[in-house]
Amino acid sequence: MDNRPWLRAVEEEMEALLVSHDPGLRPFYGMMRYHLGWLDRHLEPVQSDGGKRIRPWLCLLTCVAAGGNPERALPAAAAIELLHNFSLIHDDIEDNSRLRRHRETVWAIWGIPQAINVGDGMLMLSRLALHRLRDRGVAADRVLQVARILDDTCLRLCQGQYLDISFEERIDITIEEYLFMIGGKSASLIAASAEIGAALGTDDAAMVAAYRDFGWELGMAFQMVDDILGIWGDPAVTGKSAASDILSRKKTLPILYTLARGDDNSRALQNLYAAPSLDEADVAHVLALLERAGALADVRARAEVHTGRALAALARTGMEGPAQEQLREIARSFLTRAK
Amino acid sequence: MDNRPWLRAVEEEMEALLVSHDPGLRPFYGMMRYHLGWLDRHLEPVQSDGGKRIRPWLCLLTCVAAGGNPERALPAAAAIELLHNFSLIHDDIEDNSRLRRHRETVWAIWGIPQAINVGDGMLMLSRLALHRLRDRGVAADRVLQVARILDDTCLRLCQGQYLDISFEERIDITIEEYLFMIGGKSASLIAASAEIGAALGTDDAAMVAAYRDFGWELGMAFQMVDDILGIWGDPAVTGKSAASDILSRKKTLPILYTLARGDDNSRALQNLYAAPSLDEADVAHVLALLERAGALADVRARAEVHTGRALAALARTGMEGPAQEQLREIARSFLTRAK
Repeated sequence: MDNRPWLRAVEEEMEALLVSHDPGLRPFYGMMRYHLGWLDRHLEPVQSDGGKRIRPWLCLLTCVAAGGNPERALPAAAAIELLHNFSLIHDDIEDNSRLRRHRETVWAIWGIPQAINVGDGMLMLSRLALHRLRDRGVAADRVLQVARILDDTCLRLCQGQYLDISFEERIDITIEEYLFMIGGKSASLIAASAEIGAALGTDDAAMVAAYRDFGWELGMAFQMVDDILGIWGDPAVTGKSAASDILSRKKTLPILYTLARGDDNSRALQNLYAAPSLDEADVAHVLALLERAGALADVRARAEVHTGRALAALARTGMEGPAQEQLREIARSFLTRAK
Repeated sequence: MDNRPWLRAVEEEMEALLVSHDPGLRPFYGMMRYHLGWLDRHLEPVQSDGGKRIRPWLCLLTCVAAGGNPERALPAAAAIELLHNFSLIHDDIEDNSRLRRHRETVWAIWGIPQAINVGDGMLMLSRLALHRLRDRGVAADRVLQVARILDDTCLRLCQGQYLDISFEERIDITIEEYLFMIGGKSASLIAASAEIGAALGTDDAAMVAAYRDFGWELGMAFQMVDDILGIWGDPAVTGKSAASDILSRKKTLPILYTLARGDDNSRALQNLYAAPSLDEADVAHVLALLERAGALADVRARAEVHTGRALAALARTGMEGPAQEQLREIARSFLTRAK
């Protein structure tokens, strides 16, 4: 299954929702279209990087793998991508991030009040996308099931984000707490993408649960690789500065793993992270501490465990075919991705 | 129908949703409970003013007036109130308001990042409330209809908020634009409250539409009276400073009416509003200009027109009974309310 025509169809599905018949509201939708990579900051058409669209693609592919017709899942795929982008618009404000995908963020251009409201609007369009499932012949109870999965997921996103923000002021975060947080912030929406795709492809509840497990484990592995790239990623490929997560003193898994060892490395790292800011020499020092603790190997091993579980969940579905093979391939490629 | 036991039932319905089994998430729900008036800023139980709960009460009353059982509408009433409060939490950030109902706003205590996220969480709980309609025996298609009304309404809230924020930088706002803005920001949720109550009370689509019209006109009148109270309200009753909307140079309807007359009054007002800030003498001057233009009488007359239309819409439903009489009473009392 070629992803290009399908991702184009997802863009069209989203685009149909981002339309205003009132000229006075065009800038409101224009800010959303800017964020999605369709317009530039002067609200003129542009082809910009709007993200990888991993989640809608997983949704469509899972629908096919479970035996369904991806046409029927298109509104759900659009809803998932709009939900994801709502959370990015708000996260950028909450994390004080001025840049995303090499462009200024919505709040950096239009201010915090408009950006909060633009995010809220995009969340509502995500909800309105779901109603289009009914037009494609999905039964009302199934639409409600999908809506409920997305509602639960979005609440988990907010719970994860609450923890992430409150972690900024703490140094004593346990690995368990961290895993719970990334479960909410990252894995839950990837799990929902697979679960929703499956629920629109089959009536077999056990199979839907297995695809959900697949998505969850995939999401955990995805975030752990993200943590690795935030420290050891190639700046030329990631588009971020080298060791960007250390520079911003983010307490990601490699850091927490090293802190939790309770040895000289941990104490040295704790002292460095207690300073108000880090310079280049500090960053080199942190990298050396992580190296000595074996943090990269530990986090990579964890990501491999989750990928293994994802593949096992896929096997439990009992399905075979090209789409299923593509899902397996995605799970493997997530481990080796460079950006 | 006595509103006290019913509003208590709405609080219970909301409360059941604001529960976390994870102790680490208690502060997340605590911030929501603070906003709703159930906890103080130390997250200890308190009985505080959490608002008038006008919208859920309208929903339940309309359900009864249309011939339905209000028990079944409770989850929808809770969803409406949670949606309203989501919008207040975000509005307070967007309007830079540090106080609401004599208490500090969520962002003023916990900061903007947490407050954005707490609002997002409350919006999601509003969605999750709707799913409880199914447990009360409401058919799936009816639940979807209610969800769609709320989704459309919330998008209109965001559209109205977009206009409201962008109006801050403009002096040339037409009365037509202003009415469109308050339609989105104020009338649409009151219209939805009545429409949803009716939709859960009857299958008669024409009757549901008439109750919606009632709510819409009521909402327009409500906002116009709000505009009057923001300028001429009694500070001892409203809890705001005298002429608070003039002090903050809000361009509400009495101001726009006076500006639109194109006479000496308009030009004087325009000059005053062009200044970077207003002192007491300026406020007195603005009040005198509004008086000379007859702004109070004009806005009151407009509110009366909308109230008349609300009563006419009620009559179109063809329903009679105590609940219907209470709805009529609410429409009349909105015109004379002092806060």
